[in-house]
Amino acid sequence: LVGIGDDSAVVTAPSGSVVAAVDMLIEGRHFRREWSSAYDVGVKAAARSLADIAAMGAVNTALLVALAAPGTLPARWAAELAEGLAAEAARAGAGVVGGDTASADVVTLSVTALGDLQHRTPVLRSGARPGDVIAVAGPLGHSAAGLAMLSAGIQAVPALVAAHLRPAPPYDAGPEAARLGATAMIDVSDGLVQDLGHVAAASRVGMRLAAGRIPVARACRMRLRAEATPFALTAGEDYELAFTVGAEHVTSLPRLARRAGCSLTRIGIVTRRPVGVTVLDANGRPLPLRAGGFDHLAAPPRRR
Amino acid sequence: LVGIGDDSAVVTAPSGSVVAAVDMLIEGRHFRREWSSAYDVGVKAAARSLADIAAMGAVNTALLVALAAPGTLPARWAAELAEGLAAEAARAGAGVVGGDTASADVVTLSVTALGDLQHRTPVLRSGARPGDVIAVAGPLGHSAAGLAMLSAGIQAVPALVAAHLRPAPPYDAGPEAARLGATAMIDVSDGLVQDLGHVAAASRVGMRLAAGRIPVARACRMRLRAEATPFALTAGEDYELAFTVGAEHVTSLPRLARRAGCSLTRIGIVTRRPVGVTVLDANGRPLPLRAGGFDHLAAPPRRR
Repeated sequence: LVGIGDDSAVVTAPSGSVVAAVDMLIEGRHFRREWSSAYDVGVKAAARSLADIAAMGAVNTALLVALAAPGTLPARWAAELAEGLAAEAARAGAGVVGGDTASADVVTLSVTALGDLQHRTPVLRSGARPGDVIAVAGPLGHSAAGLAMLSAGIQAVPALVAAHLRPAPPYDAGPEAARLGATAMIDVSDGLVQDLGHVAAASRVGMRLAAGRIPVARACRMRLRAEATPFALTAGEDYELAFTVGAEHVTSLPRLARRAGCSLTRIGIVTRRPVGVTVLDANGRPLPLRAGGFDHLAAPPRRR
Repeated sequence: LVGIGDDSAVVTAPSGSVVAAVDMLIEGRHFRREWSSAYDVGVKAAARSLADIAAMGAVNTALLVALAAPGTLPARWAAELAEGLAAEAARAGAGVVGGDTASADVVTLSVTALGDLQHRTPVLRSGARPGDVIAVAGPLGHSAAGLAMLSAGIQAVPALVAAHLRPAPPYDAGPEAARLGATAMIDVSDGLVQDLGHVAAASRVGMRLAAGRIPVARACRMRLRAEATPFALTAGEDYELAFTVGAEHVTSLPRLARRAGCSLTRIGIVTRRPVGVTVLDANGRPLPLRAGGFDHLAAPPRRR
């Protein structure tokens, strides 16, 4: 309703409430200018906050961006950053409506995303119930695999590097899952097991995942083989969406995937106890989980 | 509706729209830890964004705070920062509902404020009309005077230093002015002449201020004497509110001041041209304006 150029922006909130999330992105911590173009940084900064809105089951409406940067930052870099922010916002159905600029020694971005629930109740982390099925939208592990390759300085698989530099969360899956009756939802930023652990703790339930059903990104599976699933279970920065929904809705999941334009995989079930996340292998044995897998990615592909 | 602990916050937006503003505060640029306590930094970071919402004529509803800091930052410092943020938010009628933390070499804060228009239209910078009167809520110059004293390392006047470290915008004056029919409004962050210049440009009008009517902060006037008014006209970081309103409402200004709990001064009139801000002295001559006055503050009070 009111965009950039006044003291504040004014954004429509037709449901009578507004969903809001903020995320910071700092040069040297969350990105490097050697690896990421300004456009990439804009896409990633926007995606992180936009995914938080989708994870509430809301549609994104607007972004506010605060940028602090050194005086030496080329104007062209800032312009391309703005392009990346606007492009990713548009992919989520939102516009960049306001901002602030300041000077700082390193490029620092703060992105606030606003969203609307379309008169639905928000999908929290605390609503999972025993008997619900657990589903994840999109493949896992590609972003962390891309980062591992960049870090190791090895010849990278372009699809994996792109997934790390320009994450593409399945925004539409958030509101679609909410419409279907999702009971809990989260975006996978720190790794599936860790993030579902937040849902399990908030809902006071157990979550039993089937290792064989984890949707590992294809390029990641080819490279990591047997290590691919443990890697994908703990890999961060995918910004995919994981949610729980009543078992009676399982047959509607393929339609949800089509409507949201993403893959959707049923990966497990909510149990009463023990509270927390357990991953079982094909023989029903708990999979030992550890963060990592980076070493294997950094090494050349193994021949057997 | 949903506070800290989920992917996003959910905040009520009863008017069907939300007012949003973001501001960044960076150590070494906007504050120094030698001068400001953590509580001070919290108050100032909150005040900057909260004032932007008030300047639209809206009431504040919520703050989202992103904090990036070095790992060496004492936990106590962060806790006191949160107290300052919460206290200033509460003074404006809002709560801290969400946030993000990250690591960075210097303390970096990004505060997003959300507000509600209570079904009024937003008061923009572009609505001033020739014939309107110009009013300002609160005194001017105290913050910049406090900063000048801190910078010069001279024995400081406590009231001025406090005004710089913990600005106290007259939040209620924003919605009260909107109720009265304010045609344009802005918060005074960069200095009255510069900020009213934005209003004049956006409204394509002239603004004629009477130098003798500028409400210079008392401690500032005592110290600066003849230089006090030029100083206050260009002094930044007061976060007071300046607005224009139809001349027919002039008699209602004292009531507005009482309701908002702040001083309110009629300082000038909106003209058709020339576009921009002119300040006239007691003899009707334009006052030469320059940023500064710091030198006089840094020196000991002059005796005549």
